[in-house]
Amino acid sequence: MWGGRFAGGPAAVMREINASIEVDKRLWREDIRASRAHAAMLASQGILAAEDAKAIDDGLQQVAAEIEAGKLQEDPALEDIHMHVEHRLGELIGDAAGRLHTARSRNDQVATDFKLFVRNAVDEAVTGIDALESVLLQRAEEHSGTVMPGFTHLQSGQPVTLGHHLLAYREMLVRDRSRFADARVRMNESPLGSAALAGTGFDLDRGNTAAALGFDRPTANSLDAVSDRDFAVDYLHAAALCSVHLSRLAEEIILWASQPFGFVKLPDAWSTGSSIMPNKRNPDAAELVRGHSARIIGDLVALLVLLKGLPLAYAKDLQDDKPPIFDAHDLLGLSLAAMAGMMADLIFVPERMRAVAAAGHATATDLADWLVSQAGVPFREAHHISGRAVAAAEAAGKSLDQLTLGELKSVDARIDESVLPYLSVEASVASRRSAGGTAPERVRGAIEEARRQIAAREEK
Amino acid sequence: MWGGRFAGGPAAVMREINASIEVDKRLWREDIRASRAHAAMLASQGILAAEDAKAIDDGLQQVAAEIEAGKLQEDPALEDIHMHVEHRLGELIGDAAGRLHTARSRNDQVATDFKLFVRNAVDEAVTGIDALESVLLQRAEEHSGTVMPGFTHLQSGQPVTLGHHLLAYREMLVRDRSRFADARVRMNESPLGSAALAGTGFDLDRGNTAAALGFDRPTANSLDAVSDRDFAVDYLHAAALCSVHLSRLAEEIILWASQPFGFVKLPDAWSTGSSIMPNKRNPDAAELVRGHSARIIGDLVALLVLLKGLPLAYAKDLQDDKPPIFDAHDLLGLSLAAMAGMMADLIFVPERMRAVAAAGHATATDLADWLVSQAGVPFREAHHISGRAVAAAEAAGKSLDQLTLGELKSVDARIDESVLPYLSVEASVASRRSAGGTAPERVRGAIEEARRQIAAREEK
Amino acid sequence: MWGGRFAGGPAAVMREINASIEVDKRLWREDIRASRAHAAMLASQGILAAEDAKAIDDGLQQVAAEIEAGKLQEDPALEDIHMHVEHRLGELIGDAAGRLHTARSRNDQVATDFKLFVRNAVDEAVTGIDALESVLLQRAEEHSGTVMPGFTHLQSGQPVTLGHHLLAYREMLVRDRSRFADARVRMNESPLGSAALAGTGFDLDRGNTAAALGFDRPTANSLDAVSDRDFAVDYLHAAALCSVHLSRLAEEIILWASQPFGFVKLPDAWSTGSSIMPNKRNPDAAELVRGHSARIIGDLVALLVLLKGLPLAYAKDLQDDKPPIFDAHDLLGLSLAAMAGMMADLIFVPERMRAVAAAGHATATDLADWLVSQAGVPFREAHHISGRAVAAAEAAGKSLDQLTLGELKSVDARIDESVLPYLSVEASVASRRSAGGTAPERVRGAIEEARRQIAAREEK
Amino acid sequence: MWGGRFAGGPAAVMREINASIEVDKRLWREDIRASRAHAAMLASQGILAAEDAKAIDDGLQQVAAEIEAGKLQEDPALEDIHMHVEHRLGELIGDAAGRLHTARSRNDQVATDFKLFVRNAVDEAVTGIDALESVLLQRAEEHSGTVMPGFTHLQSGQPVTLGHHLLAYREMLVRDRSRFADARVRMNESPLGSAALAGTGFDLDRGNTAAALGFDRPTANSLDAVSDRDFAVDYLHAAALCSVHLSRLAEEIILWASQPFGFVKLPDAWSTGSSIMPNKRNPDAAELVRGHSARIIGDLVALLVLLKGLPLAYAKDLQDDKPPIFDAHDLLGLSLAAMAGMMADLIFVPERMRAVAAAGHATATDLADWLVSQAGVPFREAHHISGRAVAAAEAAGKSLDQLTLGELKSVDARIDESVLPYLSVEASVASRRSAGGTAPERVRGAIEEARRQIAAREEK
Repeated sequence: MWGGRFAGGPAAVMREINASIEVDKRLWREDIRASRAHAAMLASQGILAAEDAKAIDDGLQQVAAEIEAGKLQEDPALEDIHMHVEHRLGELIGDAAGRLHTARSRNDQVATDFKLFVRNAVDEAVTGIDALESVLLQRAEEHSGTVMPGFTHLQSGQPVTLGHHLLAYREMLVRDRSRFADARVRMNESPLGSAALAGTGFDLDRGNTAAALGFDRPTANSLDAVSDRDFAVDYLHAAALCSVHLSRLAEEIILWASQPFGFVKLPDAWSTGSSIMPNKRNPDAAELVRGHSARIIGDLVALLVLLKGLPLAYAKDLQDDKPPIFDAHDLLGLSLAAMAGMMADLIFVPERMRAVAAAGHATATDLADWLVSQAGVPFREAHHISGRAVAAAEAAGKSLDQLTLGELKSVDARIDESVLPYLSVEASVASRRSAGGTAPERVRGAIEEARRQIAAREEK
Repeated sequence: MWGGRFAGGPAAVMREINASIEVDKRLWREDIRASRAHAAMLASQGILAAEDAKAIDDGLQQVAAEIEAGKLQEDPALEDIHMHVEHRLGELIGDAAGRLHTARSRNDQVATDFKLFVRNAVDEAVTGIDALESVLLQRAEEHSGTVMPGFTHLQSGQPVTLGHHLLAYREMLVRDRSRFADARVRMNESPLGSAALAGTGFDLDRGNTAAALGFDRPTANSLDAVSDRDFAVDYLHAAALCSVHLSRLAEEIILWASQPFGFVKLPDAWSTGSSIMPNKRNPDAAELVRGHSARIIGDLVALLVLLKGLPLAYAKDLQDDKPPIFDAHDLLGLSLAAMAGMMADLIFVPERMRAVAAAGHATATDLADWLVSQAGVPFREAHHISGRAVAAAEAAGKSLDQLTLGELKSVDARIDESVLPYLSVEASVASRRSAGGTAPERVRGAIEEARRQIAAREEK
Repeated sequence: MWGGRFAGGPAAVMREINASIEVDKRLWREDIRASRAHAAMLASQGILAAEDAKAIDDGLQQVAAEIEAGKLQEDPALEDIHMHVEHRLGELIGDAAGRLHTARSRNDQVATDFKLFVRNAVDEAVTGIDALESVLLQRAEEHSGTVMPGFTHLQSGQPVTLGHHLLAYREMLVRDRSRFADARVRMNESPLGSAALAGTGFDLDRGNTAAALGFDRPTANSLDAVSDRDFAVDYLHAAALCSVHLSRLAEEIILWASQPFGFVKLPDAWSTGSSIMPNKRNPDAAELVRGHSARIIGDLVALLVLLKGLPLAYAKDLQDDKPPIFDAHDLLGLSLAAMAGMMADLIFVPERMRAVAAAGHATATDLADWLVSQAGVPFREAHHISGRAVAAAEAAGKSLDQLTLGELKSVDARIDESVLPYLSVEASVASRRSAGGTAPERVRGAIEEARRQIAAREEK
Repeated sequence: MWGGRFAGGPAAVMREINASIEVDKRLWREDIRASRAHAAMLASQGILAAEDAKAIDDGLQQVAAEIEAGKLQEDPALEDIHMHVEHRLGELIGDAAGRLHTARSRNDQVATDFKLFVRNAVDEAVTGIDALESVLLQRAEEHSGTVMPGFTHLQSGQPVTLGHHLLAYREMLVRDRSRFADARVRMNESPLGSAALAGTGFDLDRGNTAAALGFDRPTANSLDAVSDRDFAVDYLHAAALCSVHLSRLAEEIILWASQPFGFVKLPDAWSTGSSIMPNKRNPDAAELVRGHSARIIGDLVALLVLLKGLPLAYAKDLQDDKPPIFDAHDLLGLSLAAMAGMMADLIFVPERMRAVAAAGHATATDLADWLVSQAGVPFREAHHISGRAVAAAEAAGKSLDQLTLGELKSVDARIDESVLPYLSVEASVASRRSAGGTAPERVRGAIEEARRQIAAREEK
């Protein structure tokens, strides 16, 4: 493969550390697609004879069919998927195969193949996000009025609606989608034709291959094109942050399914049992989603570290770009699918949620707000009065909304009976009608707005 | 501050671990700016009396003036910058200060302040990138025709032009700029008015404060708004990748300045010496830029890990979001400025670059390409022939372009004298005229195109 | 400082990026200590005259007193703490100060100072661990018989004792302690006298300075000595893993303090309130401990990445070794102290723990084990029978131990009345007497064993 | 498998995300080994009948033989390697197989299997380190007197010997070895018999299985035992730092093999060529070693992040502990082997090294040291004088040792002819006889000392 300058062959360990076929065989579709585009362009530019181009194209299609059928013969001596494809092409069509590599190098070839893979991974991620978004909207709609405790510091703070809570995750997904979309735009330039590092003297039409492969344009600088892996880092960043969002939702499912919470029941389809404890019903999928985010963060770290300090242009270190991407791709795909499935089937227990929301003096803020708006008390003072009312309730072994008017008045004389309707959890959530607030009508409005955005997106 | 429910005070260690004033005092400008916008909105909505609003606004301006003058009195008991400002306001204007916190919480307050800081950090990064881009274009223009060795695997591969090499970094910066710009668009929503987690019952105009603070719109979900730190992760991702690009350029400067390379000389302004070795002239700034990328990667890791698995809504873990951002902000700013300064002043040594480019048989690819295009040899075979020519040159102790025609013909009889002009490094770079290639005319075209893009950008 | 070869001074940005005094001034004690040892050795070897040595030693003590008193004059032009100390020494004692730097370089000087700091950080970590261990043992002793639910997958699985649960963390601390101790042994070699990179021609006694500074021996290779930062990575690894352990305990405290759990109450000394919700009582310290582990992981990453790919010997990148260490040192110290304080003061609610333990059919494993040991049923079959009993209990709206003998027999006829005593949570924990098991007597035994280990440790 | 409580089966995605057989089948040897030890212990304790124990043991040996022969039938419904083995055992021996899982759980089973794997990985790492150490010692011995430039900041600083340079890496390996050894001691406790989380009521002899599996003792706390993964983090830390050391040596090989350096030639066995540039000879193995360190750092991050914030005891997140370990194990093994091979075969070019060492005024420190020791000049002043001499040499276009005595005297009159012998690179390295210094005699002494240590190690 490297030709006439080498007398001896590689050491056994050298061959083993160098061969990437075990990993990069996943790129066979992209490799053949890019080679067909390259050959067609060479032909249309007159660099390749028409009959050679035809033989190459037919041959590549046959190689694809063979690999599809599971007939790839792996040979570490052929190093990578690119050489496997070209070698098999040579067996099939003879010398003409040797003309395919004109005006390109493995450096631009692998950059192109890999970018095609990553671009597709972006598209898959967006599809997975959309599916989960759809489930979240549906469950939020079912539960636009369901009252649950809103936590900060995992302490019950104010009552919120379950619909509102679920829509918080929809917001994260909207940002995730936008992050992937931005990455796609940024990466969508074709490295093909950059050759080894310097461009080529052959009269290529790089716009032709770019268009054939769905790229917006060719890359602008050949040295950059063969050594750039920003597109993969951008993907890993978007994947890591998306998986961190999923890990937060997973954490909530695990908490909610725990006996002390009891906010949800896991259906059999999303539970596992124990090999020793017959009573167990474990939220394994949620735990795995949470765990997978750790691995995707590790993948992002690996690639950033790999690139740090590398001089131009291509270095073999870059061969290690693929395992993190393949790993993150598989883990994110499973995580999104599992989360969509779990969220669709999760059995919420509204009565338990409401009971916890009503405990814990969750409307203390409403009392303070009433003092501000109805009695003209500065907020800081109102906050202190409400705090004393909570202390009085605790002393009396009641929740705040169970205090009598007399008990409230003894905390502060300005409190009158008009406060009482404000202290139920239903009144509390209904009152929070500020933009982005938890009131059921706001939740329904947010769902409508989300549906409008989705429809607009799909029209494009 | 937390009011009537607490009898005992915090333990000493509790106070120490909890206080963030030492770190978050950097947010004082943002805090006062957001509070002024909040108070003005409360007044225009009739929630705050005009005279209170006036007192608050005047008071906040005075607090700002005091802090600007270095008169902030730090007190760990006041925990953070938000309480410091409000406390000092209370000292200045009395009870009216207690009305400022109406319809907001520290949760939306800190999210707003922090986002304002990060948004500004994005803008500073873009400014720093533009300055470095400008230097790169200028140096590339000076050296559009300077021949240097193009390396892959740090092995001399093909000759390239120094201008082309520098423009590869300009491409990275273009992507960095786009990454920061995308992050800015995505983050530019105002959390203010989300209150603790659920929104509020006060009749706020969140669009008003959003506009006053330069945000495009209010955030759509209050639970998400107070617990979202995506904007900070996006900043750190963009910063980490930008710093990785700078680390690559730094690595090259370090290599080029090393005696065996000798491609550049460092001026005194960008060198340091040794406390023991009088002969040293060290590229400290480049090494520090390379090192800083490690720390920014660490900052990115810290924030991603911080967020993983956190249930909604705000958790105190989020207080640890600021050190990584402040650290990355400072390191990236210095790195961009140092790199711009170094690149502007670096003294290139073209004759040494050319000498290395001409050694190492760097035009072997040109010989192979000549065989393909002039003698119709399939590329794979041409590659082998050229490889044998290299081996022959090595055996003869010559470089490839020093072989006689006879020697070349003895490698392959199809080679004739018309090949000779192709084997100089100048001919080689001039021939690489494919789009994105290294030919001097391509380099000059790329610089013109870059200048057009910059002009178009500045018109906006 | 760098002497005669430099005509021009540094650029302003160069000076700013290069100066480390803002960070490394924390090393002043170590720097002066090492300089005093170096000067004393030079004198005893006859390299430094006695009167010079005396002047230097007196001067260094005066510099120390000045810095202790807060009188360090920071000057970025003096770069780092080493030059600040030497410069001030020169002001105090004149030319003799210039003899201190004989036969050393900043490279071995900073390696020595920094290692002294890290070694001390190790010792502080061990002290903090011991204090927390002591609290855990005390609380475990109080609660050796307190029944709580044992969770896997955060699902109630089998009852355990709170003492046993707390001792699990003691095991982690034992490993943490051992990890720090191993790191201390490995790092305890003195770099001083390695000079810039090659050693020196002066007739040093490196064993002398090593002993004076408490090192076991001098380092064996000068190139390694000035570029090694393994000791700092080892510290960060031990700190990161220790903080991960603390984050697990912190997570439990946060869960336990949450209303749905209600396993613990936070005393006022370890709670904070909310600026808006008067009802809140937040476990901020636990959340900060959990958050700090993210930052320490980031610190570890930063240093590993910094070192990757650096050729020998010293490179300026290494200046970035200090911020991660200082950060981790401060965060770990606070985390250990806060956790010890919280654990000491935490108010456990045993009745709530027992109630949750008794729900959830937590003795289903005991039923299965009874079937194996008393009725000779293979475990896999017994597991199925017990699972059916759980299903029957769920259908009947009871917990497993509330099923009548008749109901149990209808699940499997081999069950008889002798099973009934096995189904209470107290019987369950009492039965788990295998080594390392949760039975109260085992817990008490483990505490005794721990106390024996501590006594043995202290005797040394 | 989970028995009687589950009516419905898992969703397809649930099954896919949950199944780990594709990954954990690598643990089959460890799983069968631990099961055999468990069954033998159950029998000796009278918990398992002798004939059942015999059937189980024979059956497990048959399962092992089948898997060895490649006949494992993977079935995602059986989840993991543990259930695959037990299921196949059931097919082979019938009901008795159901008795194997008595008094254990998958939680302690997987902890045991995994720890056996990691312990073996430690042993393999030590073997790989020893092999590389042996090569380094041999090459250092060959080159104990070979002069090369010693770099700091990649600037030629002082001459050193190549043997000394190689021995610096030996020091790193010695620490790596010690780090692995410490981890082995710390991890060598048996989790087996901890059961699900609480221990068991069966009368186990955990010391028996611990001894049978080569552990020093059983773990002390069952909750810790099933949720501890410290041993894997310790392995990854040692592997990451070892790989960082290898990455430094790899960086040097890449630099040295680059045309401008030319310090080494890569033999064919350790070079690859280019698919387009016939002149290339690439140090791929070194680059891959450098790249692999990025991935191992990513693996370490993944596991630390996975563990952060997990409450006790086992959580399914822990299933994601295996991919990072398997990845790091494979990468480290290849890296050590490749580095040993490369270092053994690398062709050094001493004449080029000496030429670079002699350029660059590398003996300027020697001149300064001469002024201190022979002319009584304070070091700081001597450093300045030597710096001026370097400047004079640069102005004259000479290297420092080419200056005439007159030229030297015109820099400082105290310089006399006795300085001249000190200014050659050979004299310089010979003079650095301080402990740990670069003088050839010191290098030979260090090699002897290393050989003594190795002999002492092997005697144990």
